Amino acid sequence: RINSARLWDSLMEMALVGPGVAGGCNRQTLTDADGEGRHLFRRWCEAAGMTMGVDSMGNMFATRAGTDPAALPVYMGSHLDTQPTGGKYDGVLGVLGALEVVRSMNDMGIRTRHPVVVTNWTNEEGARFAPAMLASGVFAGIHSEDYAKSRRDMDGKLFGEELARIGWVGDEVVGARKMHAMLELHIEQGPILEAEGKTIGVVTHGQGLWWLEITLTGKDAHTGSTPMNMRVNAGLGMARITERVHQIAMSHLPNAVGAVGQVKVFPNSRNVIPGKVVFTVDIRSPEQAKLDAMKAEVMRAAHAVAAELGLGCGIEEVGHFDPVTFDAGLVRIVRQSAEKLGYSHMDIVSGAGHDACWINRVAPTVMIMCPCVDGLSHNEAEEISPEWAAAGTDVLLHAVLEVAEV
Amino acid sequence: RINSARLWDSLMEMALVGPGVAGGCNRQTLTDADGEGRHLFRRWCEAAGMTMGVDSMGNMFATRAGTDPAALPVYMGSHLDTQPTGGKYDGVLGVLGALEVVRSMNDMGIRTRHPVVVTNWTNEEGARFAPAMLASGVFAGIHSEDYAKSRRDMDGKLFGEELARIGWVGDEVVGARKMHAMLELHIEQGPILEAEGKTIGVVTHGQGLWWLEITLTGKDAHTGSTPMNMRVNAGLGMARITERVHQIAMSHLPNAVGAVGQVKVFPNSRNVIPGKVVFTVDIRSPEQAKLDAMKAEVMRAAHAVAAELGLGCGIEEVGHFDPVTFDAGLVRIVRQSAEKLGYSHMDIVSGAGHDACWINRVAPTVMIMCPCVDGLSHNEAEEISPEWAAAGTDVLLHAVLEVAEV
Ligand SMILES: NC(=O)NCCC(=O)O
Ligand SMILES: NC(=O)NCCC(=O)O
Repeated sequence: RINSARLWDSLMEMALVGPGVAGGCNRQTLTDADGEGRHLFRRWCEAAGMTMGVDSMGNMFATRAGTDPAALPVYMGSHLDTQPTGGKYDGVLGVLGALEVVRSMNDMGIRTRHPVVVTNWTNEEGARFAPAMLASGVFAGIHSEDYAKSRRDMDGKLFGEELARIGWVGDEVVGARKMHAMLELHIEQGPILEAEGKTIGVVTHGQGLWWLEITLTGKDAHTGSTPMNMRVNAGLGMARITERVHQIAMSHLPNAVGAVGQVKVFPNSRNVIPGKVVFTVDIRSPEQAKLDAMKAEVMRAAHAVAAELGLGCGIEEVGHFDPVTFDAGLVRIVRQSAEKLGYSHMDIVSGAGHDACWINRVAPTVMIMCPCVDGLSHNEAEEISPEWAAAGTDVLLHAVLEVAEV
Repeated sequence: RINSARLWDSLMEMALVGPGVAGGCNRQTLTDADGEGRHLFRRWCEAAGMTMGVDSMGNMFATRAGTDPAALPVYMGSHLDTQPTGGKYDGVLGVLGALEVVRSMNDMGIRTRHPVVVTNWTNEEGARFAPAMLASGVFAGIHSEDYAKSRRDMDGKLFGEELARIGWVGDEVVGARKMHAMLELHIEQGPILEAEGKTIGVVTHGQGLWWLEITLTGKDAHTGSTPMNMRVNAGLGMARITERVHQIAMSHLPNAVGAVGQVKVFPNSRNVIPGKVVFTVDIRSPEQAKLDAMKAEVMRAAHAVAAELGLGCGIEEVGHFDPVTFDAGLVRIVRQSAEKLGYSHMDIVSGAGHDACWINRVAPTVMIMCPCVDGLSHNEAEEISPEWAAAGTDVLLHAVLEVAEV
């Protein structure tokens, strides 16, 4: 079993880097805080005897050598970036749990045939630079590096320039590494494991997603002196489409979700009818047919609302992945590891997107989940117990020992 | 008649101070640009032989002496501040038109018994610091100066500190000046005069207004892994209330308007269900009963939507004035001046709020309106013709000569 106290200490120490305003974290990707977190992670990896490699997307790979120089490495890890008002465990548990696996192997003097690599993927959250899982997406050949580096944050700053600014453009070619397997430990971010009283989620699938960014254009005008019938109100259009996104998700239950998370109103003055609104839509389902249908319905609804209000309507497809099926052999190994360790477990579908969803395209991949309190995530109040963290990391350890061959 | 070319030149020169991004202006109150505009206005007033007084709210009063030392002054003016994406004439025409009246009186060697004063009221727009007409409201005893100075902009900056920062805290006590009368020239900001083919609007009434600021609190949560039935979505609440505000205004037609102009979503991340939204409601009617009914309906709708979604709901009353009836004697004088000058005219109700609406409480007050193209205002594309500007200013001149007694 891993060292639960050491794992918890590291989680708490990392949480001090880019602290939030309500007990959580604001360590958004490519901020100074992200840079500081990366330095801390590198020091810890080097102290554990690993060698750090960094690719030109800033992805970090800390390698513990194996006994067979010809064997491909087994990858573990997740991400250290957070939401603007994020929790202490989302992503971080997967990185520091993987580090703890190596530390425990060191303590126990365990060697594996395959090297093992602890990974920190850049910009998993997608909060600052959409889409999410951007750098693992480049690694997996989904996005070009040029595309990724030309993404802009809300202030117009470029991903590529911000990565250079914090000093984490590495010399490795992105995606050049070949993987024997990849295992990602993550908190569930949903309520199912806790409700079912299970300690371990064996992740068999991940739901698919569409991220759309809708721009409605109307006409700035005075809220007082412009008659109702002369208004071209982009804010009203945004409101109607927000309601429709909700209704569309509700009409596809179960196995469907949808929401508008980000809204920018222009000029955003209380006595000006909004002349422009830019807002984001997030729709997901584990079923391909539902995902496709919901996307078509949202697009139709947006254009219909725009037409009824006389608004211009542009829809940008900002992010997308289809539902994911993880590697059956690795799923079996994870299930057996939980079983062997005596942890209650169940098969589960990931509601969130994860770097594992992209890496699954280029290597056998699996995820391990542990519960979080009230299913709450993307909230500073996100919480887990040290026991849950330890259980997930124990399962990761045993699965990795199996896959990397002791 | 006034000097139309000189008036237009001054309008164009002022528009260069705090230029917008699309041909209009961004000279929001208490910004550096506002300070620069004030200096330019003071220089022009002094060049026209007037003496500038400034009160502790930054209201500017340029006096042209009368022949009778005991006679109370006749005030003219409006405001030089603009919306963030505002036009070149909203407010500015009323100030520079008044200045042109004095310049013309100088040219013609006209003296009046009463002094005449050209006024620039601070923060009429209310875009940066709500409510609108803040400094004329303090002048009229509606708001305390402490209240006004403790208003904050979106970045949390204080009105009082920003006024001091730009150096326009004057030594006069606010409201100490007594007025014989006040006349405000303004563009209509609506479509009626143009549609009716009239050059002059004789403003008999102003519609009343309520500004509400609604704060909905839900729970930040993951857009992907949070089941639909566990969401407490403040963004959805904002959308529903935005639609209800629109419906409530439509149900009270004619003589009713309503819109949501400003929306702030927290944390405003595309994969986080909004845990908090703060947004503004603007409802207006010239009929007291409709205004009261609409306000009650909006409050009820907001609480009902919040209850149905499980949201917390706080409603702050940010601004309010009842429908206004302008001084009958002054209305008659404005109508007669238009008549005498041969300008087509009609009686009209102001759809927007104006400093005149507050000053009306403490002195006989009236407004003169001229058309604007397509009724468009609070938009950088706001446009008027030099002929309309000159006609409005001619009427102002003749009305003032009558009221101030040549
Ligand atoms: N795990 C996680 O929160 N990833 C961010 C991408 C998403 O929104 O699913
Ligand atoms: N005239 C004008 O636009 N005033 C601002 C206050 C209002 O919104 O009516």
